Amino acid sequence: MPNLPLEMERLHRMAADCGIVRIGTAGIRQLRRLVDRIEAETGLQFIRMEMGIPGLPSPDAAVQGEIQALQQGVGAVYPPFEGIAALKTEIARFIQRYTDVTIAPPNCFPTLGAMQGCYLGMALAARRYADKTRILFIDPGFPVNKLQARSLGLTYTTFDLADYRENKLASKLESVLAAGDYAAIVYANPSNPAWLCLSATELEIIGAAAHRHDLVVIEDLAYFGMDFRTDYRQPGKPPFVPTVAHHADHYLLIISSSKIFSLAGQRIGMLAISDSLARARHAHLKRFYPSDVFSEALAYGGLYAIGAGVSHSAQFGLLALLQNINRGRYDFLETVRIYAQRAARLKTIFRANGFQLVYDRDGERRLADGFYFTVAYPGMAGSDLVTALMRFGISAIALDATGSARQGVRACVSQIAESDFDIIAERLAHFQRVFG
Amino acid sequence: MPNLPLEMERLHRMAADCGIVRIGTAGIRQLRRLVDRIEAETGLQFIRMEMGIPGLPSPDAAVQGEIQALQQGVGAVYPPFEGIAALKTEIARFIQRYTDVTIAPPNCFPTLGAMQGCYLGMALAARRYADKTRILFIDPGFPVNKLQARSLGLTYTTFDLADYRENKLASKLESVLAAGDYAAIVYANPSNPAWLCLSATELEIIGAAAHRHDLVVIEDLAYFGMDFRTDYRQPGKPPFVPTVAHHADHYLLIISSSKIFSLAGQRIGMLAISDSLARARHAHLKRFYPSDVFSEALAYGGLYAIGAGVSHSAQFGLLALLQNINRGRYDFLETVRIYAQRAARLKTIFRANGFQLVYDRDGERRLADGFYFTVAYPGMAGSDLVTALMRFGISAIALDATGSARQGVRACVSQIAESDFDIIAERLAHFQRVFG
Repeated sequence: MPNLPLEMERLHRMAADCGIVRIGTAGIRQLRRLVDRIEAETGLQFIRMEMGIPGLPSPDAAVQGEIQALQQGVGAVYPPFEGIAALKTEIARFIQRYTDVTIAPPNCFPTLGAMQGCYLGMALAARRYADKTRILFIDPGFPVNKLQARSLGLTYTTFDLADYRENKLASKLESVLAAGDYAAIVYANPSNPAWLCLSATELEIIGAAAHRHDLVVIEDLAYFGMDFRTDYRQPGKPPFVPTVAHHADHYLLIISSSKIFSLAGQRIGMLAISDSLARARHAHLKRFYPSDVFSEALAYGGLYAIGAGVSHSAQFGLLALLQNINRGRYDFLETVRIYAQRAARLKTIFRANGFQLVYDRDGERRLADGFYFTVAYPGMAGSDLVTALMRFGISAIALDATGSARQGVRACVSQIAESDFDIIAERLAHFQRVFG
Repeated sequence: MPNLPLEMERLHRMAADCGIVRIGTAGIRQLRRLVDRIEAETGLQFIRMEMGIPGLPSPDAAVQGEIQALQQGVGAVYPPFEGIAALKTEIARFIQRYTDVTIAPPNCFPTLGAMQGCYLGMALAARRYADKTRILFIDPGFPVNKLQARSLGLTYTTFDLADYRENKLASKLESVLAAGDYAAIVYANPSNPAWLCLSATELEIIGAAAHRHDLVVIEDLAYFGMDFRTDYRQPGKPPFVPTVAHHADHYLLIISSSKIFSLAGQRIGMLAISDSLARARHAHLKRFYPSDVFSEALAYGGLYAIGAGVSHSAQFGLLALLQNINRGRYDFLETVRIYAQRAARLKTIFRANGFQLVYDRDGERRLADGFYFTVAYPGMAGSDLVTALMRFGISAIALDATGSARQGVRACVSQIAESDFDIIAERLAHFQRVFG
């Protein structure tokens, strides 16, 4: 166990050994490798807040449902690539029970993680018209969505939501979208990394702008219902989880099961296409797909053509879980609530030691506690803060990569154990003594 | 149970109810729906030879390996998107043991079925250069690969291998590739639907042409080793499974586990990139991907960006199976040999009743018996034959959709049970009496 802080030279030498030139701007996977290296070489045990990995076991219903399906032999049989019928029904029911939005089961699909849903959604949205191929990302956001746009040959524009809250959002959207070449608006709610939550007014503004400019809204609900300021735990009863679906006609809801259901390993997400978008016809789609109908083009030219569906047994696992959730037998939000409790405690510890929250308000309201939070240290650039924290055995990523113009780091609470809080408090107090 | 043949009017009425205008050219999924419909309405039980579905249970090692991994909790944890290290090693070993070709484990990936490997392979190959974006498909082939090319915005050309065997293949390739805008050659060996198997000379010709024109060879080995004319059952000992890898430098091997391992349900295939292609750098890749190195662009901009890897538990299932196979504890080729036995018997029955094989020779050699075979009835177009067979309770698909200029149907043997042979013989004898 080394003396803290780690010496800069030593840190840089280990970074160089991992192929990292500048620690503060290293990719998340490079950082992870560096942390592993430091732990192995020095014996220092890190407080790991860099990765957005779920920290809970998968629900029993999902695991047992999948095992049972395997025992019954589904592994030998091609799954329907559009999803097994019962699963499509339960996805629709899940959305209905928690958002009060109705989407027909044929328009609900299991996908290879939420990522495949977003990839295909952008592809389809941007191929409806020859001259509308740009994506608008509302940042800060998940960097991989930009990687997806790039791999599809699409261009994109971004702005930071925090600078355009409530009614300011309307004029900002109008000024951006006036260019006329946009295909889709993409954002997450709650957002990664800032944990900003859009208000009903903001969702209405987005829906109206999308309608006016004939855009598809792609809403990433990776943290569905995890704005714990409101209690969304009762399926079928208000309050319902906010979504643009209440305010838009052409939208895709993309619901990851990685965090809310702790099913990251099985790569099975949910994609729901609004009924009106599903049946929309666009002649230009036929240049790329076997159908001009949005949902058919997505299913046959996307889900089928890329991989012929997703794991048969995982579909049964998710089915079993949703059956429990939709019937009130399993409260997924109660389970993941622990992330919010951790975030609240961690924010207090960071603030008590000279740190400030970077994103801290949704308009008038204090930001929700959730899976991520963002902190800065006065006078320190985000990338320098990554390096400085690392010298104290704490890993996090700089906000730069997420489309944020603000200085600071994203901290993920998922891997924090009860025994870690005291260690963090001690290390941050030490940090403050050193950096003043 | 109706009198056979089914009346034309009745058949057409049921087809119309399924949204099918012309039975002979209906897609495979539409046909399937029609057959289900006829069975339900008439009580007639079909001999189903339309779908290429494996007809065997998954090997125990794969199922138990996956169940064990689920019990150990891998469902909650993101898999490495490039594949778990042990699996990469076993994929490389499998290729080594059965083909005598060495590919480094980092260049071996699990994919969302073989289809994702082919999709990404074409994308990457066609993005190496701005002006080389056309795919050459050697037909007859799997229609979905063309769907993939289309969804990637790529153009393609095809020709029928049966018309250009052995040395004729060299001049044909030369005349086609002279256009200079090709990115890749795609073919399956053995092929679906014709079950043509390329000779060593032909593979050498393909490898040399690809080298001369700087193309990527994408070799679909969905039926790896299933040319049962040669005994490839001993891992690590000759004879080795033929592959272009013996004759080319820039190639992708795409090995589906659906048929050879009866794992169609789990959507886990294998992709191996030749070491020299893996490290090839192309500046143009950076327009689409975060790296100009072929394998890194494919991994980060493809496997990661589209779905962040494939099912964690399925990776462990495939790993357990490959460990058994590579150590000689499980003989996958012995298991799937039953398909060849069925094909031989079925060919005899069809020929005894006036049918002819459409594709029947690899040069001097009789075609191998395998998963598919192709038959025609004298004077009858392929699409008419589909309809006529259907009236006798036998379903198959027309060759037209597969890039074949020949008239006939593809029959898949996988769903045929021992009790079916007599029924088929009887129905085909009846067929011959009616059609003469």
